[in-house]
Amino acid sequence: MSSQMLYEGKAKKIFKTEDPSTLLVRYKDDATAFNGKKKAVIPGKGRLNNLISSKLFDVLNRKGINNHFVKRLSDNEQLVKAVEIIPLEVVVRNIAAGSLSRRLGIEEGTPLKRSIIEFYFKDDALGDPMINDDHIRMMDIADDSDLVQIRQTAQDVNRVLKEIFDGIGVLLVDFKLEFGKLKSNGGIVLADEISPDTCRLWDKATHEKLDKDVFRQDIGDLPQVYEKLLERLEDAQ
Amino acid sequence: MSSQMLYEGKAKKIFKTEDPSTLLVRYKDDATAFNGKKKAVIPGKGRLNNLISSKLFDVLNRKGINNHFVKRLSDNEQLVKAVEIIPLEVVVRNIAAGSLSRRLGIEEGTPLKRSIIEFYFKDDALGDPMINDDHIRMMDIADDSDLVQIRQTAQDVNRVLKEIFDGIGVLLVDFKLEFGKLKSNGGIVLADEISPDTCRLWDKATHEKLDKDVFRQDIGDLPQVYEKLLERLEDAQ
Repeated sequence: MSSQMLYEGKAKKIFKTEDPSTLLVRYKDDATAFNGKKKAVIPGKGRLNNLISSKLFDVLNRKGINNHFVKRLSDNEQLVKAVEIIPLEVVVRNIAAGSLSRRLGIEEGTPLKRSIIEFYFKDDALGDPMINDDHIRMMDIADDSDLVQIRQTAQDVNRVLKEIFDGIGVLLVDFKLEFGKLKSNGGIVLADEISPDTCRLWDKATHEKLDKDVFRQDIGDLPQVYEKLLERLEDAQ
Repeated sequence: MSSQMLYEGKAKKIFKTEDPSTLLVRYKDDATAFNGKKKAVIPGKGRLNNLISSKLFDVLNRKGINNHFVKRLSDNEQLVKAVEIIPLEVVVRNIAAGSLSRRLGIEEGTPLKRSIIEFYFKDDALGDPMINDDHIRMMDIADDSDLVQIRQTAQDVNRVLKEIFDGIGVLLVDFKLEFGKLKSNGGIVLADEISPDTCRLWDKATHEKLDKDVFRQDIGDLPQVYEKLLERLEDAQ
């Protein structure tokens, strides 16, 4: 693979393809947490996230939720539509955990009586601060109609993912989405990845953590945990 | 004054009156900053904030912006309508400063192309975290129609205060409001105080700080600065 790398993030590399409307995403084996303060290389992680993310994006496409995924190319590569990423981390929460629990004093594991959406400004140097609609408009990150579409899509994704995970005995605690504007026509689509790196997933019966918290908190073997999740997802359909 | 104290905050004490629909507010000489980490007693501060806040609430009442202020009773006391405070700090910003500059990397003094409103959950133990509409609804702090009214009132207050301060050569950089539900009928009204403790105010010509930042940053004599501001306000009308 000699094509030009456009971008290297913490978990993925993005390459040009011959078609300007598509890009190749290569998932890396790097794990990071706490805004890059904790790091490790975990062989097999790239493959697992690529397989899980491909699977979930494929289901979302079939359910009518437009996203950047075109097809999986190999164990650790997928082809996606070229987008310009909107610098927002869109977090959807169904159960209190992580920063929500710490910031608002809500015990981890408390079901939220309705799901909530949070926006974070995607900026490593600033530590991805939480922002509201006024900040987003002021910084020209997105306009009002973009925000309506992003919120609606985030809720639709939540509905579909909750159903998928519920079917395999997994609680969808929370997850992070990113959106991009298609290079082709400027339309907003779901992008980035959906994997145990970007979701909190708990076994419904035991509340065992099946996501990157096993790395953040050193409470399990990440490849084993992700592999089990992948198997459950593949058995699902 | 022997009446029963209902509440003591960092800057004010609240007492019952003979009329259950009104309360007496006594402004204290205590100054605090950084969520109470920095403290001092500054003789005269209570009087100055009471006089300034009374003046501003009176103007707002006359401009049709309902608030809890009834009348000033003495140098450091005012009579207000009894409300139950909604645990939100509503911050309106016209120019970047303070936490906005730090969190979003916007240089202090940068005019914002439109004013922005932020909500903070009023909870000392949690350090008053920033929250969004979804958190507010989830925690039953306010409902959708309350939030519409609070945002509209905050914008109206901003319009009136900007005009007042502009008339005396002062920039209204940002300010914090609190709202309460009237004990009498549950209606939402502006409450708490509006003073140099709760506003950032800069001299228009010199950008000299005329607010509590002189205490936070040890850059001036607080009573002198507040007294000058009061004089300018009294000369205004």
